[in-house]
Amino acid sequence: MSEIGEFGLIDKIAALAEPTLSAVPELLTGIGDDCAIYCPSAELLQVATTDMLVDQVHFDLLTTPLRHLGSKAISVNVSDICAMNALPRYALISLAIPASFSVAMVEELYLGMSLAAKEYGLAIAGGDSSSSRSGLVISISMIGEVSEKELTRRSGAGPGELLCITGSLGGAAAGLKLLMREKEIMLNHIENNESYQRSVMADLMEYREAIQRQLLPLARIDIVRFFHSRALRPSSMIDISDGLSSDLQHLCRQSGVGALIDEGRIPIQSSTRLIADELQDDALTWALTGGEEYQLLFTIPREEYPAIADNKEIAVIGETTDAKEGVLLSDIYGMKIDLSSIRGFDHFSR
Amino acid sequence: MSEIGEFGLIDKIAALAEPTLSAVPELLTGIGDDCAIYCPSAELLQVATTDMLVDQVHFDLLTTPLRHLGSKAISVNVSDICAMNALPRYALISLAIPASFSVAMVEELYLGMSLAAKEYGLAIAGGDSSSSRSGLVISISMIGEVSEKELTRRSGAGPGELLCITGSLGGAAAGLKLLMREKEIMLNHIENNESYQRSVMADLMEYREAIQRQLLPLARIDIVRFFHSRALRPSSMIDISDGLSSDLQHLCRQSGVGALIDEGRIPIQSSTRLIADELQDDALTWALTGGEEYQLLFTIPREEYPAIADNKEIAVIGETTDAKEGVLLSDIYGMKIDLSSIRGFDHFSR
Repeated sequence: MSEIGEFGLIDKIAALAEPTLSAVPELLTGIGDDCAIYCPSAELLQVATTDMLVDQVHFDLLTTPLRHLGSKAISVNVSDICAMNALPRYALISLAIPASFSVAMVEELYLGMSLAAKEYGLAIAGGDSSSSRSGLVISISMIGEVSEKELTRRSGAGPGELLCITGSLGGAAAGLKLLMREKEIMLNHIENNESYQRSVMADLMEYREAIQRQLLPLARIDIVRFFHSRALRPSSMIDISDGLSSDLQHLCRQSGVGALIDEGRIPIQSSTRLIADELQDDALTWALTGGEEYQLLFTIPREEYPAIADNKEIAVIGETTDAKEGVLLSDIYGMKIDLSSIRGFDHFSR
Repeated sequence: MSEIGEFGLIDKIAALAEPTLSAVPELLTGIGDDCAIYCPSAELLQVATTDMLVDQVHFDLLTTPLRHLGSKAISVNVSDICAMNALPRYALISLAIPASFSVAMVEELYLGMSLAAKEYGLAIAGGDSSSSRSGLVISISMIGEVSEKELTRRSGAGPGELLCITGSLGGAAAGLKLLMREKEIMLNHIENNESYQRSVMADLMEYREAIQRQLLPLARIDIVRFFHSRALRPSSMIDISDGLSSDLQHLCRQSGVGALIDEGRIPIQSSTRLIADELQDDALTWALTGGEEYQLLFTIPREEYPAIADNKEIAVIGETTDAKEGVLLSDIYGMKIDLSSIRGFDHFSR
C-alpha cells in the first residue's frame, strides 16, 4: 500500500466507483471534492461527507479526553461541509467500541458529539454501534445543504485571484507535539514507578490554546455564515485538514491554476512560534504541513477584496497564477520554494 | 457495557441525541427506525442509514472472500433502506485498512462494493480511508429516497393485520455454522502440520446456497419494486437483520401491537433442515434467532391480501394482535411460546 499512497488509492477507488454513477444523474459530483454533491430537488443541493477516526492512528486516548474526541469527530465532518460553503444538517454516527469501555465512557464520547452538534445546529439522526476486538473506531457521515448559487467547489479558481486563509496555522501541530512530550513524561514516570503528580495542569496552562487547537478544533462555520451574510461566494474552497501545502496543491490541481504564497503573510501566532522555539522545531513547517487545522483556504477575485477586508479572521496569503508557474512559496528572503516537494500527511506512505 | 446491552445503549444514545433535533425540523425521525427520515423538499423524503462491519465481530477473513464482503457491506445498508419501502440512491464508504492489506486486496473489496452498487442502482459518492492498527473496519452510510405516500415505518401496524415475511429463513445461520466447521477443520490441519488439500469446493458444493446466504446476502429491493408496482404500502416494515424474533418484537413495540405467528408457516427450506440435522442443531431456532437474513418483515391489512397472494417470495406467517396479548409463537402442537424469552444477537450482552 505504501507504494501507491493514500492519493493513489483514492484514484483506484474512484475508478471502481465510476461505473456506479450513471444510474444516479442527481449525483452531480462523486469522489474528488471535500463532499459529494447531490441534487434532491430543483432548488436545493445536498453535500455529503464521511470521516473515520481510528484509535492509535488519529487519536491517543492517553492524551485525549473522550468528550473532546466526540466533539472533534463532529467538527472534522462539519469542516468538510463548510469547505463547500454549505451548512450541516444531520449526521449518522457509527462506533466500534472496545470491551474495555464502560457505558459512562461511551456516554462521555456521545455527550461531546451532542454538544458540538448543538453548537453547529445539526441533528444526530442515527447510527450504528458494534463491539470492537481492538481499539475504538468512530465513523461519522454528515449531510449539509446549500443553494446552487452558493455552492463552492475546489475547482473554480482562475489565475490572478487572491488566495485567502482563515484563522492562524501551526497551532494544532504545536498542541500535538506538546501532548506527545507530555505522554512521554507520563510513560517515563510509570516506567520508573514514580507517581505522576506534578502540576500538569498548571504546567500546561500556558499551552492551553495550542492544546485546544489539537484536541478541540472548531470548524469555520462562522466563515460560511459570514460569506452568506455578504452574498459572497469564493471562487474555490478547501479545508486544510491535510495541511496547507498539500491542500493548496489539491485546490490548484483541481482548478487548473498555479499559486504563489508569501511566507511573511502566513498567519502564525507568536505563541506557536514560542512553542516551536522551545521544542527546537520550526513553526513554518508546522504551518505548511501540520494537518488537522480545519481552517478554510479559498480564492476570490481581486475586486471582491473589500468584502473580506474587515474580517480579522481572514488573511490574504498570496495569489493564484498560471498552472505552468507551479505552486510556490516565496520565503522571507524572496527565494521561491516548490511546495510539491513538501507534503502533508499520507495514511499509507510511511 | 454488558449490563445494559446494545438496546440499553441505543436508548442512552438517543437521549443524548435528542437535544440536537430541535434545530433541524426537516428531520422527521431520528434514532428508532431502520433509517432516519429527512424532508429536503415538499415532494420528497430521504432516508439515511449507516452500518459498520468489524473484523472478528461481523466477519472472519479466513472464511470470507473480500469481494463477497464488499458486496455484503453494501447489501446490509440497502436492506435498511428497503425496510422503509425506499430505494437507495448513494453511499459513502469509509475503510480502516490494516497494514497487512495489499492494494489488490483493497481493490477486490471495492470491486465487490461497486458490483453490488451497480446491481442496486446506487452511486458510490465518496468516502474516507485510513490505516488501521488492528483489523479491517468497513463503515458505509447510505441515502435513499421515497415519496411520502410510500414511506413505511416500523410503527404503523394495527391489530388484526397480516404478518408477512419475504424469502426463507435460517439459511444464513446454516451457512455460518458450515463455515465455522470448515474453519475448525482448516485450523486443525494447520495445527497438525497437515496440508489442507481436501476437495473443499466439491465438499461444500452441496451447501452452496446456505453459504451464499451467509456470505453474499441480497437485500430485497425486488420486493420494494413489487410494492411500488402494485401501489401497495405495507402498514409497517422492518428488516430482520437481528433475527425474526428480535425484530418482530421491535416492530410490535413500536406499533403498539402484539403478534401471533405460526411455526408451521415460517418458511424454512428443506436444505436448511437437512444441514441442521447434520450439525445436530435446530432449524427453527436458526429461523427465529439467526441474524443477517436481510429479509423484510411487514404487515398489511387483511383486505390487501390479494395484492400479494401471487408473489411466491412472500409468506403470511401470522397476524398482529392487541398489545396485551404479547408476541407469541404457536408451535406445531398448538403450544404458545412467548418470543420475548428468545432474543437475537446483542453486541454487548455476551
